Amino acid sequence: MTSPRRSLADFVERLGGRVLGDPATTVAQVATLERAREGDIAFLTNAKYRSLLQETRASAVIVGEAEADATALPRIVCANPYAYFAKVSALLNPAQEFAPGVHPGAVVGEGAHIDPTAHVAANVVIGAGAAIGAGCVIMAGCCVGDKVSIGANSRLYPGVVVYHDCVIGRNLIAHSGVVIGSDGFGMAWENGRWLKIPQIGRVVIGDDVEIGANTTIDRGALDDTVIEDDVKLDNQIQVAHNVRVGAHTAIAGCVGIAGSASIGRYCRIGGSAGILGHLQIADNVEIASFTLVGKSIREAGSYAGIFPISKNDEWRKNAAQLRHLDELARKVRQLQHEIEELKRKNP
Amino acid sequence: MTSPRRSLADFVERLGGRVLGDPATTVAQVATLERAREGDIAFLTNAKYRSLLQETRASAVIVGEAEADATALPRIVCANPYAYFAKVSALLNPAQEFAPGVHPGAVVGEGAHIDPTAHVAANVVIGAGAAIGAGCVIMAGCCVGDKVSIGANSRLYPGVVVYHDCVIGRNLIAHSGVVIGSDGFGMAWENGRWLKIPQIGRVVIGDDVEIGANTTIDRGALDDTVIEDDVKLDNQIQVAHNVRVGAHTAIAGCVGIAGSASIGRYCRIGGSAGILGHLQIADNVEIASFTLVGKSIREAGSYAGIFPISKNDEWRKNAAQLRHLDELARKVRQLQHEIEELKRKNP
Amino acid sequence: MTSPRRSLADFVERLGGRVLGDPATTVAQVATLERAREGDIAFLTNAKYRSLLQETRASAVIVGEAEADATALPRIVCANPYAYFAKVSALLNPAQEFAPGVHPGAVVGEGAHIDPTAHVAANVVIGAGAAIGAGCVIMAGCCVGDKVSIGANSRLYPGVVVYHDCVIGRNLIAHSGVVIGSDGFGMAWENGRWLKIPQIGRVVIGDDVEIGANTTIDRGALDDTVIEDDVKLDNQIQVAHNVRVGAHTAIAGCVGIAGSASIGRYCRIGGSAGILGHLQIADNVEIASFTLVGKSIREAGSYAGIFPISKNDEWRKNAAQLRHLDELARKVRQLQHEIEELKRKNP
Repeated sequence: MTSPRRSLADFVERLGGRVLGDPATTVAQVATLERAREGDIAFLTNAKYRSLLQETRASAVIVGEAEADATALPRIVCANPYAYFAKVSALLNPAQEFAPGVHPGAVVGEGAHIDPTAHVAANVVIGAGAAIGAGCVIMAGCCVGDKVSIGANSRLYPGVVVYHDCVIGRNLIAHSGVVIGSDGFGMAWENGRWLKIPQIGRVVIGDDVEIGANTTIDRGALDDTVIEDDVKLDNQIQVAHNVRVGAHTAIAGCVGIAGSASIGRYCRIGGSAGILGHLQIADNVEIASFTLVGKSIREAGSYAGIFPISKNDEWRKNAAQLRHLDELARKVRQLQHEIEELKRKNP
Repeated sequence: MTSPRRSLADFVERLGGRVLGDPATTVAQVATLERAREGDIAFLTNAKYRSLLQETRASAVIVGEAEADATALPRIVCANPYAYFAKVSALLNPAQEFAPGVHPGAVVGEGAHIDPTAHVAANVVIGAGAAIGAGCVIMAGCCVGDKVSIGANSRLYPGVVVYHDCVIGRNLIAHSGVVIGSDGFGMAWENGRWLKIPQIGRVVIGDDVEIGANTTIDRGALDDTVIEDDVKLDNQIQVAHNVRVGAHTAIAGCVGIAGSASIGRYCRIGGSAGILGHLQIADNVEIASFTLVGKSIREAGSYAGIFPISKNDEWRKNAAQLRHLDELARKVRQLQHEIEELKRKNP
Repeated sequence: MTSPRRSLADFVERLGGRVLGDPATTVAQVATLERAREGDIAFLTNAKYRSLLQETRASAVIVGEAEADATALPRIVCANPYAYFAKVSALLNPAQEFAPGVHPGAVVGEGAHIDPTAHVAANVVIGAGAAIGAGCVIMAGCCVGDKVSIGANSRLYPGVVVYHDCVIGRNLIAHSGVVIGSDGFGMAWENGRWLKIPQIGRVVIGDDVEIGANTTIDRGALDDTVIEDDVKLDNQIQVAHNVRVGAHTAIAGCVGIAGSASIGRYCRIGGSAGILGHLQIADNVEIASFTLVGKSIREAGSYAGIFPISKNDEWRKNAAQLRHLDELARKVRQLQHEIEELKRKNP
């Protein structure tokens, strides 16, 4: 929280853009326009909040070309203020560093290879034959199964579990409670009982993936479950066996994705949405929160299916009618016929 | 399970109310009217179950004023039988006590302060500079991050994770799998890739909060995520970054609350409901289970938006019509016009 | 992954069915018809994929009687190819074996009884008076509370938590992050504050149950929460206090079941469905994904209640009309009257 101050000149040298006002202005932290105080740099990403530029107490701001002259404050003008802000924040708030080495309280299986630059914390268990890449940080209480491979610079927060044989790319961020590689929900029905189907696929995760707290990703039944590069998963998402999530897709919290669904690249899926099994979703599809995708979507675009909220009484009346909607539609067709008849008789 | 017996006189001395029947009657446990056996004290909170008073085998009962004479059993008469029952149960079932001290298998970071009356179990990791208050119980496998502060008499069940810098009040109960302070879901889009936005806010939790198993609360992006006093969160709730939950609000399981939503005081939110980002919900709002709150609610009251369940065939027909509802409404308007026309012609 | 090869003759000797083609044909692994390579045995469970039999590169296939002659490949003919495949896969992919014994890094409470054939891994904590049955595997970081009883051959994956006094049958499989026995969401309202109601029931689980990653099952408030034999729960399910799930019922991911709901035997509940509290669901009921069960279901059958998805614009128009559906129905009744009137006047 006590970042060293950096100057606007320093930012543009590293990140591009140009300074208007004094380039020697220094800042220590990022903040919103409303909350900024002396020493903060704020940002404007939406023209409708432009008036906040007049009130902010920020020492400097990041703006787009259209707002280059909308304030007298020292400012950085750039093409994408939100992305620029993200980079400024990363410079002012570098990720915590962890000393290389394996804590004496960690348990490391036979034949596991842990890169000497990796950090393995207390109470971690690393399985036999696992491989932990350079610069990885495996925090307290994580369990990494036998023969798992984790690429360089990945970070597992406390309590992440990765089951045996899963393959993870570089730069993974997995938050606490994430479970990767648990058995898919597969069973056969025989003689009045369930019979478990061994789940022998893996989870294969690309590079630059982030997975939110308590999200679960099941291993494949026969083939693998696949999460491609730069996929971003929020908290408490359930990814069933043999799902494929295409590169650069972002999925908000509490979404459930059923077995063998295949989601395209560059999709955005809203919170608490659901996707049924064996469906295909094209690239560049946007799904609204709370929407069930019940059939494949072949065409890019925005989709929704949400019951609108209302006062309880109104909802009750409308919902009651909804149960007779098919009947209502039939009545309307009947009325159309009757009116046609009347009009014919009384031209 | 083998509580010492207590007399009705003992209860009213501690908790108020009055005894009818023998005040020396003793009981060892609470139970429902249906299941109660000798030695149990039962309670009646809903007049419609009054007839159960005749059949119960309880040794005593707790009733409201209106039922003071509805039974001949020894009884405590009070204003709020359900709350009274809660207190009687707390006396008969005191929370398990844990010996003060830090288990030798726990790992405590530099400069952490653990009150000598606190209990820290095996495999716990406490970060540098953290502060654990008097009477706290931190159970096995919990991870408390650097500089976290936890108020007196808080209880973390096994496997809770609190990320660095979070601030927790007194009397927190956090059940297993709870994650507090994980990164919010924040990223900027640039050049066809996601760019992570550092999440530099904290989670700040008031006094007397309870958090159910596997619930997740993300830290703020810039400002804090705030859970006020006496908030009760059930299991598997997702609270995104910069959410505020007002005091005394209770939220049932599986609810998802998107970023920067602000929920008022004294609200009650049903299970699996969803709340979109940046919305405001007033005080004393009740949201039905399975309802998406898609716009701000400015007025106290009960709200719902649930698709009614029916037999699969009926649902299919009604849902199909729902996709043509706008068209149906247009047809009805058209029919209204045509009938007006006919009526004019045939007065 | 390097299973020893087994012959078709070996399978039919153990599992029944009959071989057509060379019974000495050996296979090492199971696969789908599409992905199978030399050394794999594939299976056909749905006649509509029959044409794949011509293209597969599998060394052998499992088929039903109707497809006995649909291929020239070496094949096993049986009554239930999917169940047969499950058994073949179990023979080719036996569950990992774990050496009996308690890891020196485990902490075992006073009076706990761990069967000498059980495996207890590093960082496990077993409470006082707990009983762990023969052949159990308790993986790293699990916490088993005081006086918990776990039946023979149960398997707890890393990080499972079982609270005190819970009773678990034989052959449980609990995946990582499962929480069994956390407090139910019970409180009384008094004087503007919540009062916790001690949750003094247990969770009681039958034999042959599987529980998916991060699923939570709360203990009962007064009586027990009960999961009967052969119940299969997917990931991230929330089971509230005093719920009963009947034998052989299967529940898909992300389902929320509110307090005291009672679900029958042989039910199948789709993903992200919800079940309100105190409801009864009969045996052999099927609930569609994303459906809220808002009232008891007394009759076997399939039920649904899902808002259909559509393009965002269409959804918006239809949803807007849905808020006026009751009004629309009234208009239609009005039109019916007016037309009756017109018809009377103009016969």
